Amino acid sequence: MKDSKRLSGVLSPVVTPFDEDLSPDADRLIAQCKWLLSQNVGLAVFGTNSEANSLSVDEKVELLVSLVEAGVDPKRMMPGTGCCALTDTVRLTAHAAKLGCAGTLMLPPFYYKGVSDDGIYANFAEVIERVDNEDLKIYLYHIPPVAQVGFSVDLVERLVTDFPGIVVGIKDSSGDWDNTHAMLERKWDDFRVFVGSESFLLANMRNGGAGCISATANINPAAIDHLYQNWEDDDAATAQEALDDIRNTVMAYPMIPALKATVAEFSGDDAWRTVRPPLLGLARDKSAALAATLRGKGFAMPGLS
Amino acid sequence: MKDSKRLSGVLSPVVTPFDEDLSPDADRLIAQCKWLLSQNVGLAVFGTNSEANSLSVDEKVELLVSLVEAGVDPKRMMPGTGCCALTDTVRLTAHAAKLGCAGTLMLPPFYYKGVSDDGIYANFAEVIERVDNEDLKIYLYHIPPVAQVGFSVDLVERLVTDFPGIVVGIKDSSGDWDNTHAMLERKWDDFRVFVGSESFLLANMRNGGAGCISATANINPAAIDHLYQNWEDDDAATAQEALDDIRNTVMAYPMIPALKATVAEFSGDDAWRTVRPPLLGLARDKSAALAATLRGKGFAMPGLS
Repeated sequence: MKDSKRLSGVLSPVVTPFDEDLSPDADRLIAQCKWLLSQNVGLAVFGTNSEANSLSVDEKVELLVSLVEAGVDPKRMMPGTGCCALTDTVRLTAHAAKLGCAGTLMLPPFYYKGVSDDGIYANFAEVIERVDNEDLKIYLYHIPPVAQVGFSVDLVERLVTDFPGIVVGIKDSSGDWDNTHAMLERKWDDFRVFVGSESFLLANMRNGGAGCISATANINPAAIDHLYQNWEDDDAATAQEALDDIRNTVMAYPMIPALKATVAEFSGDDAWRTVRPPLLGLARDKSAALAATLRGKGFAMPGLS
Repeated sequence: MKDSKRLSGVLSPVVTPFDEDLSPDADRLIAQCKWLLSQNVGLAVFGTNSEANSLSVDEKVELLVSLVEAGVDPKRMMPGTGCCALTDTVRLTAHAAKLGCAGTLMLPPFYYKGVSDDGIYANFAEVIERVDNEDLKIYLYHIPPVAQVGFSVDLVERLVTDFPGIVVGIKDSSGDWDNTHAMLERKWDDFRVFVGSESFLLANMRNGGAGCISATANINPAAIDHLYQNWEDDDAATAQEALDDIRNTVMAYPMIPALKATVAEFSGDDAWRTVRPPLLGLARDKSAALAATLRGKGFAMPGLS
């Protein structure tokens, strides 16, 4: 049976705007989140593409409060809460659950490498026990190309089995469709499998997936949501190709700086260009070239303020 | 000219004891640090082997205060302060410098992979500017097998050149002697090159290095310091072999659980066995086997309480 409290559809790992002094800009983030919601895209704030791992727990706690106080619906939010330190993960996850966020997207602890499935399991068991909130919903965040530490399909099964109603989904950013497919094949009850790129969206929907949580949903939300809503249509493959074309255009540049440059170019708001070290902003000539290429493809960001 | 404020010799990335509820045990840590100092080994608290990346910044700030208040000399301390988030690194580094720590051992921000030398440089420049303490001394922490992000020799040169008197050394845990040697060859003025394993200690000293900061200095401090003090002796190669034998014995097991199990076995204090997830404690039979093998080699930990 489908649980209406579980998330599906398209979510964006919302890019985080910074002031000139590199502090998070809550007002710009609120406006961006409201725009994404207007495009029917949910809010996976504090994802990899949000530079979330360049923010302290305090900064994330404060931003989450600002969003909810500004009227951004926590039921559309799946903040990233997985940190290296158990105590940080617990604090941030408890905060998100208390604010009523529909879910949390949880990286495994990612500093120590070569850790065992048992060790990652122990981490999640400890987090769940400490957060101790019956509304907690965890979506596992599998992104081995960046975190280097990930979830085997068997470990996912253990977590789903032992924490029913709590471990309810996964974002698979492995880039390996075989891995996504292997999880879909297990057919865990109402388990929500999101792909980490819209390039796999059609394949995911055809195999029972829940949607996608994708970097490019920051800039191309409506089109990605359109394919999600209409994946059974005859022209779905054509729509998938159009999404891939935009994504590949952006991916010719470093992803996060390119997303922020695109928001800056299409909103006319240069403040969006700022990234935190160790990332570097996209050079102006590259930013202009990317925007020109996108415009040449008929790309636009309607309603972006 | 040699700057007496710069560190040299043998330091230990001190293992962090935990209570049953997994909170850091300041009293046991203080006792362990005092024992290490009695063995003439300095304190690289909050290193990889300290499970430092499984601790929150608050926990580290509090532990550092406890150590200094208990009379542990900050001039013998080089706490790890490099976090993923710029703001965390600044906070912890500023705290360590204010407490009078002789140096800080700084990881690069390690979540985002494939970042450029320019991006890592920008991170360090920003940290130095924000900490704004003339006594700040940074030792770069190069450990690509774990952090995956590291320092090229050219990047080290840029940092040493642009921040003279601040970026004063490096711990090279690459395990690649050619990399260590390449830095020694550059002969930056009074730059302190520590190897990350005592297996390279003799080679490092013979080439102008400063010492080592090694996991096994937690359990074998006096012998490692003895080689450091006497590396020009005729029997230095034999002493190096004996160190390697103990290290290889421990490395047959997962390093951090094995170090803690060894402390537990030789102190009789089982509380030392506790690790934080995602690590798992060493099984009792393995712990006993490791201790028996070590005892068979005449290994002891004299003075350990």
